Amino acid sequence: MAAGEAPWSFAFAIPPATQGLRMYSSDFLHGTEDPWTRPISAAHKMVETLTVFDDVFVPWERVFFYNRPDLAGAAALTFVEFHRFTAVSYKLPLLDALVGTGFAVAQANGIERAGHVREKLTWLAGYAETVRGLTQLAAQRCLTEVGIAYPDVFTTNLAKWTFARDFHHALDTVQDLAGGLLVTGPSGMDWKSPEIRPVLDKYLRGAWPADRRMAVINLISDLTARTYGGYQAVLAIHAEGSLEAEKLAMFRAYDSKRAIGLAMRLAGLSEN
Amino acid sequence: MAAGEAPWSFAFAIPPATQGLRMYSSDFLHGTEDPWTRPISAAHKMVETLTVFDDVFVPWERVFFYNRPDLAGAAALTFVEFHRFTAVSYKLPLLDALVGTGFAVAQANGIERAGHVREKLTWLAGYAETVRGLTQLAAQRCLTEVGIAYPDVFTTNLAKWTFARDFHHALDTVQDLAGGLLVTGPSGMDWKSPEIRPVLDKYLRGAWPADRRMAVINLISDLTARTYGGYQAVLAIHAEGSLEAEKLAMFRAYDSKRAIGLAMRLAGLSEN
Amino acid sequence: MAAGEAPWSFAFAIPPATQGLRMYSSDFLHGTEDPWTRPISAAHKMVETLTVFDDVFVPWERVFFYNRPDLAGAAALTFVEFHRFTAVSYKLPLLDALVGTGFAVAQANGIERAGHVREKLTWLAGYAETVRGLTQLAAQRCLTEVGIAYPDVFTTNLAKWTFARDFHHALDTVQDLAGGLLVTGPSGMDWKSPEIRPVLDKYLRGAWPADRRMAVINLISDLTARTYGGYQAVLAIHAEGSLEAEKLAMFRAYDSKRAIGLAMRLAGLSEN
Amino acid sequence: MAAGEAPWSFAFAIPPATQGLRMYSSDFLHGTEDPWTRPISAAHKMVETLTVFDDVFVPWERVFFYNRPDLAGAAALTFVEFHRFTAVSYKLPLLDALVGTGFAVAQANGIERAGHVREKLTWLAGYAETVRGLTQLAAQRCLTEVGIAYPDVFTTNLAKWTFARDFHHALDTVQDLAGGLLVTGPSGMDWKSPEIRPVLDKYLRGAWPADRRMAVINLISDLTARTYGGYQAVLAIHAEGSLEAEKLAMFRAYDSKRAIGLAMRLAGLSEN
Repeated sequence: MAAGEAPWSFAFAIPPATQGLRMYSSDFLHGTEDPWTRPISAAHKMVETLTVFDDVFVPWERVFFYNRPDLAGAAALTFVEFHRFTAVSYKLPLLDALVGTGFAVAQANGIERAGHVREKLTWLAGYAETVRGLTQLAAQRCLTEVGIAYPDVFTTNLAKWTFARDFHHALDTVQDLAGGLLVTGPSGMDWKSPEIRPVLDKYLRGAWPADRRMAVINLISDLTARTYGGYQAVLAIHAEGSLEAEKLAMFRAYDSKRAIGLAMRLAGLSEN
Repeated sequence: MAAGEAPWSFAFAIPPATQGLRMYSSDFLHGTEDPWTRPISAAHKMVETLTVFDDVFVPWERVFFYNRPDLAGAAALTFVEFHRFTAVSYKLPLLDALVGTGFAVAQANGIERAGHVREKLTWLAGYAETVRGLTQLAAQRCLTEVGIAYPDVFTTNLAKWTFARDFHHALDTVQDLAGGLLVTGPSGMDWKSPEIRPVLDKYLRGAWPADRRMAVINLISDLTARTYGGYQAVLAIHAEGSLEAEKLAMFRAYDSKRAIGLAMRLAGLSEN
Repeated sequence: MAAGEAPWSFAFAIPPATQGLRMYSSDFLHGTEDPWTRPISAAHKMVETLTVFDDVFVPWERVFFYNRPDLAGAAALTFVEFHRFTAVSYKLPLLDALVGTGFAVAQANGIERAGHVREKLTWLAGYAETVRGLTQLAAQRCLTEVGIAYPDVFTTNLAKWTFARDFHHALDTVQDLAGGLLVTGPSGMDWKSPEIRPVLDKYLRGAWPADRRMAVINLISDLTARTYGGYQAVLAIHAEGSLEAEKLAMFRAYDSKRAIGLAMRLAGLSEN
Repeated sequence: MAAGEAPWSFAFAIPPATQGLRMYSSDFLHGTEDPWTRPISAAHKMVETLTVFDDVFVPWERVFFYNRPDLAGAAALTFVEFHRFTAVSYKLPLLDALVGTGFAVAQANGIERAGHVREKLTWLAGYAETVRGLTQLAAQRCLTEVGIAYPDVFTTNLAKWTFARDFHHALDTVQDLAGGLLVTGPSGMDWKSPEIRPVLDKYLRGAWPADRRMAVINLISDLTARTYGGYQAVLAIHAEGSLEAEKLAMFRAYDSKRAIGLAMRLAGLSEN
């Protein structure tokens, strides 16, 4: 922090219902809520807000520190170095859902034995398991000297960057396996109609009957192509730090000594 | 077509309003229609349907051919080889919109001089112009012997495959430049509120004032992260043929003689 | 050029044999020259040098300009904008050789019908033809106002960047199709030995007889894995400008008006 | 193994010097051996051979099993599932050498602060550490029930596939950082010449003096662009199994139950 900014170096926590605290909500996940076409987002709502402190009183017992520019950097880094571990950890079920729907829809469509389908499923599994493995390693390599388990900074950011870098490719891979029914499929009202349903059952079956096949396709549509999917896609890029922030953290945390030392020895430029 | 399938080889065109013709519409683009947060999709609706012929009478004057299995393959190929040219041609404005919003939001966010931002804008422009250039070449190399200009099959599919293969990466690149406001930004109701608007104007400005910046960000959100964006993303993968169909058409249309001939000469296996 | 650097702004051409002109040659393509294992590099030598002007007399009739800082930038740009067109043009046969050897070795190994092999051959053909198409467009879109055909700067650099960006992936793709015999195959001395040759003929045949199969594999080895291949790989990255130089030229030459104009109209920020 | 092939199901080990055992050596690493331009390959030779058993006597005490088709599959899999762990483990120093020379040459060339250089170094470090991390996990997750530590099959193949898939991109990244001197630099004879060396010292210095800079550049040339580099590149693709073999092993070893189970629950198709 620059000179004169000391009074801005503080941290505290207060309840959302505190007077003067205003949260302007995004409308991103509102709208129609048919649970048949939106099996996830009809039930699970996540709200993002612009949070404004408009003359809010913060009692001293809720203040972690104040007027301590010496602590500002460390406090900010806990976001980059610690919360980013939380971030990539909570993404693992989302990746499993993409892998699992990929396998399921390949079966539902009857294409699971095609070479290119196996290639795509293998890539999806490899991507998800690389993120999971690196996340596990970030925990195993934690620093404990500070009294809590502090995840390894380089490995945490490597896991998060790997997740974020390839997430959109995971989306197009699952969409590729699922087919155009993701956006051309029928509405929940038609599905419920006793007159129309037999037509849909007849023409929308694949290797699985229409009801099971469409359940998987609607799940993929919700996860990758509707508003909830777009929300997750932007979160992948930006939540808990962007791709550039992750790479910067990796660059700073990387201990290049071993690699450079080996290069120097091989080049005959050091004696060890 | 297999033996005995001759009666299934026919083609015709009839008006949508013909009796017995049923179109079961997708609900993909319905829902809320605030033109501030959805500048494209609030005004432009595209409907996809499951189309069923339920005892439809087709007059002979509307039949292109009937009981002609010898024409079936050629008729199907006009989709792969001809309509796919239409497909990639109508995508060029969508690509321009992604490139243009990328440049605009980089300015709105005040980051247009950062090295990684220039890298991303250059990639976006290179992607869009590669698709445009290959589309242009597919037209220039058309076959005219058949009486109409028939786009070059290999180049058409190369253009379409290039478009489809990298489309999701274009989405994540523009989202990367735009920032998390894509999904955390305020609703149209808050934006119109005389009480709230000054708060939004104060905190949502970047290098551009909040109204101009949010107009670009909302456009990107509509194009890449809301339902309309998901619809376009699935279309990129599946409409007018999937990635695998495009690669198959490329493989079949590629004239490998020149390349193989050169390799054989260089290997000393032919005399020419 | 900075103030005081005017005397350094000059251009001329002189014969290599001029007194005082020294060329320190790289040893990159020297070494053994068995034409069986090195069908290209045993016959074709390309020499790179460090060129030093050590008190060289340049007659005025050989000087294009002198003391003209106003011409320095334009003279340098002819390299970036004009010679780079030459650069990508002369690479097309190299790309054809990679595509052609890919097809040939897939046949020689008897794997040309495998799905993943077709996928790789399609990618190779698509890569080569994208570079060829963009090169052709760069010529078609040339500027003629200057009295000579000046290739379109953006398209030229797009072609060259596409070539350079994906060249190493073309190498690993062809190596993947060829197999480990690229580096484990027999020497020319063994091949010529009447005692050993029957053993090699017996064990090194694939779908093609050993002599034809090894001719293609040795060609690929020369083009991608021996010194000549390494020379071409580094040239792909650095000759006539690096990847970064190409992207910089693209960014400067790209006319972003159309794309930004479209984005602004769609965002409601301009009236046209 | 097919019926009647039982006598072909055997395994044994004998010394290379056994009578009748013939090894036809590749010439891949022969040739000039200047240690200045080839700091690695001048000292370290690796020989590949075509190994032929021409009427070799194998004593019974050297036979692991014979006429046991029931053991054939398991024996073959130890290659895929066990030796591949060795394979990726011994690659880690090679990856460190690429990362280390990347950092060193960026300093030698004085470009280590450029944004695109940091991006490339970060990618290199991320690639090497992902392979290292997955290798470490493959060991940690080993199966011990068989009496020895058997590395986890999926993770081993994931590590090996990640290594092989991106190796050529690591090569072009390091070559990009190093510059064209990789192939245009002087020979060892010129370097040793008392007359020529001062010229080279003058013109080949960067941020580092010429001798140190060229030592790193020559190391990179040896590792990535000369015959030794080509040998390593082909090994990356083919040794201990190709990319396709690794993906097949991943697909077979992947336990898809968790992912599919999650997808089915989210789609409402199972009760758990």
